[in-house]
Amino acid sequence: MIKPRTPPGTMELLPREQIAFQRMLDTIRRTFEGFGFLPIETPVFELSDVLLTKTGGETERQVYFVQSTGALGKLAESGAADGLPELALRFDLTVPLARYVAEHEHDLAFPFRRYQMQRVYRGERAQRGRFREFYQCDIDVIGKDALSIRHDAEIPAVIHAVFAALDIGEFTIQFNNRKLLRGWFEGQGIEGDAQMAVLREIDKLDKRGEDAVRETLQGEGFGLSAVVAERLLAFSRVRSASHDDALAKLAALGDGSPLFEEGRDELREVLQRLRALGVPEARYSINLSIARGLDYYTGTVYETTLDAHPQIGSICSGGRYENLASHYTKSKLPGVGISIGLSRLFWQLREAGIVGVAESSVDVLVALLDDAGLDHALALSQQLRAAGLNVETQLEARKLGKQMQYADRAGIRFVVIRGEDEAAKGVVAVKDLRRGEQFEVAEGELGSTLRVEREQWRAQAGLEAAP
Amino acid sequence: MIKPRTPPGTMELLPREQIAFQRMLDTIRRTFEGFGFLPIETPVFELSDVLLTKTGGETERQVYFVQSTGALGKLAESGAADGLPELALRFDLTVPLARYVAEHEHDLAFPFRRYQMQRVYRGERAQRGRFREFYQCDIDVIGKDALSIRHDAEIPAVIHAVFAALDIGEFTIQFNNRKLLRGWFEGQGIEGDAQMAVLREIDKLDKRGEDAVRETLQGEGFGLSAVVAERLLAFSRVRSASHDDALAKLAALGDGSPLFEEGRDELREVLQRLRALGVPEARYSINLSIARGLDYYTGTVYETTLDAHPQIGSICSGGRYENLASHYTKSKLPGVGISIGLSRLFWQLREAGIVGVAESSVDVLVALLDDAGLDHALALSQQLRAAGLNVETQLEARKLGKQMQYADRAGIRFVVIRGEDEAAKGVVAVKDLRRGEQFEVAEGELGSTLRVEREQWRAQAGLEAAP
Repeated sequence: MIKPRTPPGTMELLPREQIAFQRMLDTIRRTFEGFGFLPIETPVFELSDVLLTKTGGETERQVYFVQSTGALGKLAESGAADGLPELALRFDLTVPLARYVAEHEHDLAFPFRRYQMQRVYRGERAQRGRFREFYQCDIDVIGKDALSIRHDAEIPAVIHAVFAALDIGEFTIQFNNRKLLRGWFEGQGIEGDAQMAVLREIDKLDKRGEDAVRETLQGEGFGLSAVVAERLLAFSRVRSASHDDALAKLAALGDGSPLFEEGRDELREVLQRLRALGVPEARYSINLSIARGLDYYTGTVYETTLDAHPQIGSICSGGRYENLASHYTKSKLPGVGISIGLSRLFWQLREAGIVGVAESSVDVLVALLDDAGLDHALALSQQLRAAGLNVETQLEARKLGKQMQYADRAGIRFVVIRGEDEAAKGVVAVKDLRRGEQFEVAEGELGSTLRVEREQWRAQAGLEAAP
Repeated sequence: MIKPRTPPGTMELLPREQIAFQRMLDTIRRTFEGFGFLPIETPVFELSDVLLTKTGGETERQVYFVQSTGALGKLAESGAADGLPELALRFDLTVPLARYVAEHEHDLAFPFRRYQMQRVYRGERAQRGRFREFYQCDIDVIGKDALSIRHDAEIPAVIHAVFAALDIGEFTIQFNNRKLLRGWFEGQGIEGDAQMAVLREIDKLDKRGEDAVRETLQGEGFGLSAVVAERLLAFSRVRSASHDDALAKLAALGDGSPLFEEGRDELREVLQRLRALGVPEARYSINLSIARGLDYYTGTVYETTLDAHPQIGSICSGGRYENLASHYTKSKLPGVGISIGLSRLFWQLREAGIVGVAESSVDVLVALLDDAGLDHALALSQQLRAAGLNVETQLEARKLGKQMQYADRAGIRFVVIRGEDEAAKGVVAVKDLRRGEQFEVAEGELGSTLRVEREQWRAQAGLEAAP
């Protein structure tokens, strides 16, 4: 006998948690599709030489390699000298997207708007709330040669629509622009590689605090003067409180280098289009401390935080990059995109008590009082399914109390009962476990009645109508 | 520069193919939920010692092992002597289900009805139409200690609902019962291990043909007499043409051993309940040649074929088994289930010209004639999204002809145009690319008008209403 256990660092859910998770996935997907993003899926593994175009990074140290049984023996015989295994699990959805776009370039229309919601794999050290397998929900818009800044403005509208639909509390979409940052650094005499180093320090402000970052900036390696370091920190403190405040704060930054002005123009364009898109101004803010450590961002950068749960950190991040797939194609493919790490978010929301188990996906339990009623119960169940309801039939007669208890624990709302009295009258009794009510319906009207009840509740609960 | 390429044996789709595939997945999921099955997902990998409880089988030779970069070095140093890598990719959804049910036994209600639609991995030899990564869509009902035969009767009703909804042509659900087979074998003096061997030969009838199987049965190892072999083949030819014919053919088999009678009673029960469930009798048939080679089936067995495409073979198979998780728990967990190998089915349907690319998931392209119109186009797009439509906004002005061409190629049905004339009148022009018509609508009514058009078409096309 082997002890059944899930691998460390994976999130496996019980059915009612899985339903709650699936509803979040569905909501995100529906919203992405609402904005005209197209679905793609890529294989869980890539060829190792295709996936690992860069070497030695943190990411690569976390890569999972895959090999079939046959190849395993060969590798063991030959030792590591023979090179890497043929396959490796994807560690994000960005490298597979780059490979996909480069490989299918001639079959795609640009700008290419894709969404992708799949699991990714990282050999993280096992610890609470850190996952080795987790869902990412990504959108990206990829241009050919060029991509208008207007796409950067649409992205926060998608973020807004997603988190408004998920209904997990007030949130703020914060954004910045790395051109503005780097242009401003230039004005302070910070040039070249030092800019990236400073960017990474700024990015750590939330975690390390101002004092630690100030010390680093003035210390060895950076050697910024106290005045410049202080100016940098003051700059990083800029947050806007409203749309007009954002414009005013951008204006108050004074004149700067061409790169700085380009970044400022881009931020203004994003602000203008966001207003046209009707995104409520309480939901977005300029935050000049946002740098996003990843080296490949070059323009707009985004983070999103839950107002009541700042400790969760950014729940949706991304930005603009110059060239998606330079390792795979000579075509220049600039893009802008965001990612939601849904497994981690779900886990955090559950820890914070914001999401829990869902009602069952089963709407109706058709009870069975005695075996003679089975054929009728089966036919009635099919009638309810034809009306669009999800139905479980009790296939073995047992005490009604037991059946009620089962429905209650399972989160099933309606129990349909047909005893001798009801059969004689051509009706069924319906127990509504949510409302704690019982009522009678003519059999022929049962499907439409329960369907209406369900849709009314879904509408009240802010859920989409079910198909 | 590295040539971008997908790993051999994987199926990667372009967006419009992905949409077609996704619609099939959605239809299957909706149908499974309609019958009260609950979703679960398991990690893509399992601990190797948990996954590989049996050794030396065909399946294990096809297993993909997974190891992180660190572990890889260690394995290469120590050679294979150190044992298997820690993790392995799942090769089906049945072993993960067994592990899940055993691990979460005390948190589940039995009978446990679960569906699971995820990818599985097998290191198959690369060949056309054979996949190393493919979707399986499974349902199983798991009982504790016992599970009524009535569940076996519900399964074909699910199969019927799935393939009716997928609308890929006429199909036949064929079933048999291994108790009936083994009981009948007993009557012919075929006992013990020989029964399983004969079962496996019977299962090959379709592939090898009667002559080859007859020869094997009479040859060394089996040594059946010509009379018994002939009786066996005649028995295997039994197919029912209707519900009553099925009952008549079962009756005509004469009396048999207790095991035979048990199997026949079970088949009769399945037939009776299928009729109560309203499954059309043209859609199901008894076929006494179906044995399903897998050793773990013990009662009802199912196969499903497309009437016009017998060469595709079974598109949905499964059966009843005695004990799901004997490797992980002392609890006895009998079950019944089926599996649809959707990647392979999709590939075959595409080869046969039955499915192709889908219309776009994008309903509307909001065209842009000049940059001054952008803010209005953005606001209009949001208004359409609020009406439940999927909308792409053209963010950069270009010739209308180009925008039309783009929508046409992308499979987008509606293009919304607002030129000076339309703006003056407070209307927009709508080009319906499917009907080849153009009409004008007041801006305020655009959302509801297009929504109604879309729902009418979806209803005609037999698609579910979109949420």
